[in-house]
Amino acid sequence: MTVHEPSAVVLRAHRTDLTQPPSEVLEVVTLPPQEPDAGQVRVRNLFQQVIAASGDLMFATSQIPVPVFRVGEPISGPAIGTVVESRAGDMPVGTVVLHMSGWREESVLGRGEAFPVPDGVFPGPEYLLNQGVPAYHGIVDIAEVGEGDVVLVSGAAGGVGSMAAQIAKARGAATVIGIAGGPEKCRYLVDELGLDAAIDHRSDDLDERLTALAPGGITAFFDTIGGSQFEAALRHAAPRARFALCGTLAGQIGGGDGGHPRLDLMTAIAREVRIRPFSTRHTPEQIEAWNTHYARWYAEGRIRFARTLLEGPLQRAVAAQDELLAGAHRGNVIVRFAG
Amino acid sequence: MTVHEPSAVVLRAHRTDLTQPPSEVLEVVTLPPQEPDAGQVRVRNLFQQVIAASGDLMFATSQIPVPVFRVGEPISGPAIGTVVESRAGDMPVGTVVLHMSGWREESVLGRGEAFPVPDGVFPGPEYLLNQGVPAYHGIVDIAEVGEGDVVLVSGAAGGVGSMAAQIAKARGAATVIGIAGGPEKCRYLVDELGLDAAIDHRSDDLDERLTALAPGGITAFFDTIGGSQFEAALRHAAPRARFALCGTLAGQIGGGDGGHPRLDLMTAIAREVRIRPFSTRHTPEQIEAWNTHYARWYAEGRIRFARTLLEGPLQRAVAAQDELLAGAHRGNVIVRFAG
Repeated sequence: MTVHEPSAVVLRAHRTDLTQPPSEVLEVVTLPPQEPDAGQVRVRNLFQQVIAASGDLMFATSQIPVPVFRVGEPISGPAIGTVVESRAGDMPVGTVVLHMSGWREESVLGRGEAFPVPDGVFPGPEYLLNQGVPAYHGIVDIAEVGEGDVVLVSGAAGGVGSMAAQIAKARGAATVIGIAGGPEKCRYLVDELGLDAAIDHRSDDLDERLTALAPGGITAFFDTIGGSQFEAALRHAAPRARFALCGTLAGQIGGGDGGHPRLDLMTAIAREVRIRPFSTRHTPEQIEAWNTHYARWYAEGRIRFARTLLEGPLQRAVAAQDELLAGAHRGNVIVRFAG
Repeated sequence: MTVHEPSAVVLRAHRTDLTQPPSEVLEVVTLPPQEPDAGQVRVRNLFQQVIAASGDLMFATSQIPVPVFRVGEPISGPAIGTVVESRAGDMPVGTVVLHMSGWREESVLGRGEAFPVPDGVFPGPEYLLNQGVPAYHGIVDIAEVGEGDVVLVSGAAGGVGSMAAQIAKARGAATVIGIAGGPEKCRYLVDELGLDAAIDHRSDDLDERLTALAPGGITAFFDTIGGSQFEAALRHAAPRARFALCGTLAGQIGGGDGGHPRLDLMTAIAREVRIRPFSTRHTPEQIEAWNTHYARWYAEGRIRFARTLLEGPLQRAVAAQDELLAGAHRGNVIVRFAG
């Protein structure tokens, strides 16, 4: 019997510079096969998500409150796979599970590390990789978006942003404006996701467009970018606007203008803008709230799962990490591996 | 009968530069005496407050949401005076009133512009000029300070900051740390106002001192300064710390480092720091809440009215405006005029 040596993506060195593409420090290698211990399962991965935060965790230090990736070891990220060998009674062979040990063909996981995917809630298991939970929490609990709101979403064609913008519409916002890079993404936001307007940060004058689109100011802002887009949002904030901040992509990409904006305190104080940064760690209550609403909104056609689906192997995911940071993709970036 | 021509402070030109002392654009002039119309009173002023915001309102434009001072007209600010001529039945001669038309010997005021000072609540009418209302609102409603909190206050020897720090102690905070400029102010904060510790921003290393004084991080921050002091507070914020922001003195003084800090979004998001700028406009409920608590706390010796009392005439107030922006005074700066 020949033993299949599964492949995995290993960190060869820490990144040292935001302009350095992640692919320069990553390598696909084969590893000795790993047997599950008692209570563990061996999973063959079907889908893997490529997320911006992974680029940060390749540096020697990161402000993201999880351990950085270690040199010489596989990196990790969200994935979905099928149990192919089980020593855990509640996860028999064939169970489809969500886990955080992607970036490898096979993952060995214990209890608390693998979460069976519920049947029938989603059109396919990969839908669990959408970033609806932080988007829902940010729009509903943090920005408190409701009927009549004028909402601005940065990174609106991205994984979290596309969900946030659609959830704002589903909650009854009067106007939802998305910021994205390039005319193709902007058309997508309006024509396919149903946003009221889109601003192209590569070619449009943000201030001019916001003055035209939100003459009374924006009442809520969902920010995944930071930097100059945050600064523009504050200039156009209505009194007592609510800002939900969950990302700093502007600070995570080479050539960006830095994720850390200048905070104009005079304006913030005069307008009493509530600024609430929040972490995208999920609580079970947040997951439950999102799943409940998502199923209904999806069935009603009010929410689409914005994604870019790429076909494996693992080397494709490595390239996709570079492309994601360059703004090349729309929505959640998911790599599918041949079954 | 000779007619007394009351004097007033008039704006001669707009300020153009933060390094320009306000006294350069102000002039004390005499004006023709003004008779009260029906429903108005003529007030002879007893006390006047000198506040930082006045320096901003001398520019041609200001972000503070009140109209800027007009060239050729008297400037204004909080004052207390005695009614010397009355055509308003509810404010007979002798009534002591609080109003916003200071910077002049006499003010003519209508209903809604003059507020009789309640008897017996305060040791003297000038106590109404303390800045307890925004301090109370910021500490209690915005930063939600309670038992066990580790509280940092910037501008802690100033009018608002000194009140905020004492209110935090009275609310049961475990540790209250004040930032001020110079050893004399720092001693005052600890020895006379009862703060747990003081940091001298002119000579201390903010990070080093905060690491020593708040090893577990600060749970609440009351900011009247902005700039690099805000940035340091964020570096030392505990998870879910509450920031109440009501001033940007660092941006209002020449030679300061600018009031507008860099907002480190990575840190703010990872720690979910709630950032709430708030305006110091008062609501009747806020005034009532503060007066109720103040009387008790003052009687118990838990709150002192931090002030610098200067003796008039009006030219002294003009000089005090320069001195205030240079950080020369402690607490509320009040000018008393000879009765």
